Amino acid sequence: MPGKENMGMKRSVGAQPLAYPLPVFVIGTYGPDKKPDIMVAAWGGICASEPPSVSVSINPNHQTCRNLRETKAFTVNIPSEKYLAETDYCGMVSGRDHDKFRETGLTPVRSEHVPAPYVGEFPVVLECRVSAFHRIGKGVQVVGEILDVKADQEILGSDGKPDLQKIGVVAFDVTGMQYYSFGKVIGKAWNAGKKYMK
Amino acid sequence: MPGKENMGMKRSVGAQPLAYPLPVFVIGTYGPDKKPDIMVAAWGGICASEPPSVSVSINPNHQTCRNLRETKAFTVNIPSEKYLAETDYCGMVSGRDHDKFRETGLTPVRSEHVPAPYVGEFPVVLECRVSAFHRIGKGVQVVGEILDVKADQEILGSDGKPDLQKIGVVAFDVTGMQYYSFGKVIGKAWNAGKKYMK
Repeated sequence: MPGKENMGMKRSVGAQPLAYPLPVFVIGTYGPDKKPDIMVAAWGGICASEPPSVSVSINPNHQTCRNLRETKAFTVNIPSEKYLAETDYCGMVSGRDHDKFRETGLTPVRSEHVPAPYVGEFPVVLECRVSAFHRIGKGVQVVGEILDVKADQEILGSDGKPDLQKIGVVAFDVTGMQYYSFGKVIGKAWNAGKKYMK
Repeated sequence: MPGKENMGMKRSVGAQPLAYPLPVFVIGTYGPDKKPDIMVAAWGGICASEPPSVSVSINPNHQTCRNLRETKAFTVNIPSEKYLAETDYCGMVSGRDHDKFRETGLTPVRSEHVPAPYVGEFPVVLECRVSAFHRIGKGVQVVGEILDVKADQEILGSDGKPDLQKIGVVAFDVTGMQYYSFGKVIGKAWNAGKKYMK
């Protein structure tokens, strides 16, 4: 199917932090006086397999960055579509002035392996211990080793693994400043490309 | 809507590199003799706004890692759904033994700002200059400053920005080892959460 005839005319849209898809991660930390806090992060992703690690970039002035420099721990909480309003709100206000758990009604649960709260209502949560801080430009990238992943029983498939179709994954569109959902499975990995194997 | 009554029973699924959504990035580099090469990466994302930067984690033994240590440049190519087979193939074989551009029919185009090829047929491409290498566990995280983003004219909206609905975004499900497609826009950022604003 490919070939030069399928090449679109490309236009520069400038040097921008832009990619598809971008995640909607809700980062949980304990602040001063063990107050549980959450913020939203779209700059992040899995960054290593051994040990399993996730990286998230955070404005160094945000409360979360201060918190995790103290506790060396955080959670990554994956919201489902039905918690879009609660998630969005957590990106609108600061944990310095707001108790976002209380205001949204979300429930902080103490993690099993690290001193950080996770969001009880969210379908998938990662418990992480900070393993590195990287300065990148004006921001800070925090790397966390994933010590455990917890998933709601109801989103597990018959194989005991998280079932994509049951999660209700949300992604962030930074250009349109909007959220979008995921649709359907379109192919198997290491299989869809077999037609090019000799 | 939230509240303890909505909390699912959580079960540990172990320490795994797992998150939703994960991207399907196609990384373009020049190898020895300026041979254009591409690989697929799901461990990565935007990692800074100033300067705009993207990070991608790569097995240090992969040809791409060798290439970009030489050239200090790479592209991040966002495939659309219609190039799923070509994309998947690029994750099945190594650039050491294969000319993936030629075998898939995809077209290498020399970037404007960096010595790295982009995929002519893909709707959005990022031209990146390597700004850091981070060792994370057994892998290497490469950070690139995004010097330009190019998008196909046909996926731009009337505002001149990439229009999510026209791209055909693909995501990777690491648990099910499969790809899934974008669904629909479900809310505006900094708006969906207004109901919790006092």
